[in-house]
Amino acid sequence: MSKLVLIRHGQSKWNLSNQFTGWVDVDLSDKGVEEAKTAGKLVKKAGLQFDYAYTSVLTRAIKTLHYVLEESDQLWVPETKTWRLNERHYGALQTLNKKATAEKYGSEQVHIWRRSYDTLPPLVKPGDKNAANDDRRYADLDPKLVPRGENLKVTLERVMPLWEDQIAPKLLDGKNIVIAAHGNSLRALSKYIEDISDDDIMNLEMKTGEPVVYDFDDKLNMTNKTKLDE
Amino acid sequence: MSKLVLIRHGQSKWNLSNQFTGWVDVDLSDKGVEEAKTAGKLVKKAGLQFDYAYTSVLTRAIKTLHYVLEESDQLWVPETKTWRLNERHYGALQTLNKKATAEKYGSEQVHIWRRSYDTLPPLVKPGDKNAANDDRRYADLDPKLVPRGENLKVTLERVMPLWEDQIAPKLLDGKNIVIAAHGNSLRALSKYIEDISDDDIMNLEMKTGEPVVYDFDDKLNMTNKTKLDE
Repeated sequence: MSKLVLIRHGQSKWNLSNQFTGWVDVDLSDKGVEEAKTAGKLVKKAGLQFDYAYTSVLTRAIKTLHYVLEESDQLWVPETKTWRLNERHYGALQTLNKKATAEKYGSEQVHIWRRSYDTLPPLVKPGDKNAANDDRRYADLDPKLVPRGENLKVTLERVMPLWEDQIAPKLLDGKNIVIAAHGNSLRALSKYIEDISDDDIMNLEMKTGEPVVYDFDDKLNMTNKTKLDE
Repeated sequence: MSKLVLIRHGQSKWNLSNQFTGWVDVDLSDKGVEEAKTAGKLVKKAGLQFDYAYTSVLTRAIKTLHYVLEESDQLWVPETKTWRLNERHYGALQTLNKKATAEKYGSEQVHIWRRSYDTLPPLVKPGDKNAANDDRRYADLDPKLVPRGENLKVTLERVMPLWEDQIAPKLLDGKNIVIAAHGNSLRALSKYIEDISDDDIMNLEMKTGEPVVYDFDDKLNMTNKTKLDE
């Protein structure tokens, strides 16, 4: 009946330098741009036509969406950019090099921060350079909503209102939707759609630039999942 | 109080080949891409911060907007793509070479079609390859609204509801807005804002990729007009 296509943004510059990104607005690397264009070509080849597009307010996801829409000749599709699709906020770990962090806190602790469903990372304090409160793009948010650090559980809780209020109604109306976003905000959506347990969800890996296509019936049950690759 | 910035899209591929474009979805030329990026750098240098962005549903204007927002570090600004900002529909002249058209119809007639405020071009018939009715991007429009050919007067009439319902209320609310669009849809807005007569408006030329900044007071009177150039 209707289709939802999830696309994780292409490689970012900090994937290359192995730093925690989260809400830091890091651009795509050259490889990331190519991954996004390839995703668009796969969408075109599969004949996927979208009615609505969603992305986060972070440059790497927005640019991925734009390349996907342009390469599939549908740059005109209405798009919504929302903080609800942002990457998991990595708290005080943001900007840190992952290897240096492991040396400082121990690799077991870092593994827990990265892979536990409901353990919070060290939080940023208001006024820290990692705090998003002074960023103009969050000026219209209730300041209490701006996170100081998130686990996947919290990420899922702030993604779900977007599903409930905007995505689900449109899918029920037979519309096709594309979402270009981040590893963890997309993981949250997949957890809900595929009903994956808290224990298993962190094992779900989504490749950068690989479109995942969900089909739904008219009760919004998932009837099929396909990955598009070359 | 509030600012409105108008940016005409960069050079398109058919500017190069001297063809009538109108609603045909022609891409930017390489020079057009550079013009759009330069516009973004000028916006950044002027310190212009936008709250909302508007563009047409045609690729050359959308891409111009994206380059402007990206170069000025505000790709996250909410954007609306609407047919109301499309270029003037050039009717049956669309796709034709301008020189060949002058040879066929006479250069005086072509001059009238291009420069008269209220003379319609030859209209397309439903089913013609120039008719936009079968284009998916106009599927939600009342079919009677899809033009078969427009003069500037008609273009202005379909641009104005966007001003009335979306642009003016936001400017009155103190918000800054950027619009990346086309020679004639922007001319229509400028005609209204600057109160230019029917006779004079066709002499108003807007350079591709040159941001035009309007300032307004709290009664929405224009208080200043500035062009940004290098």
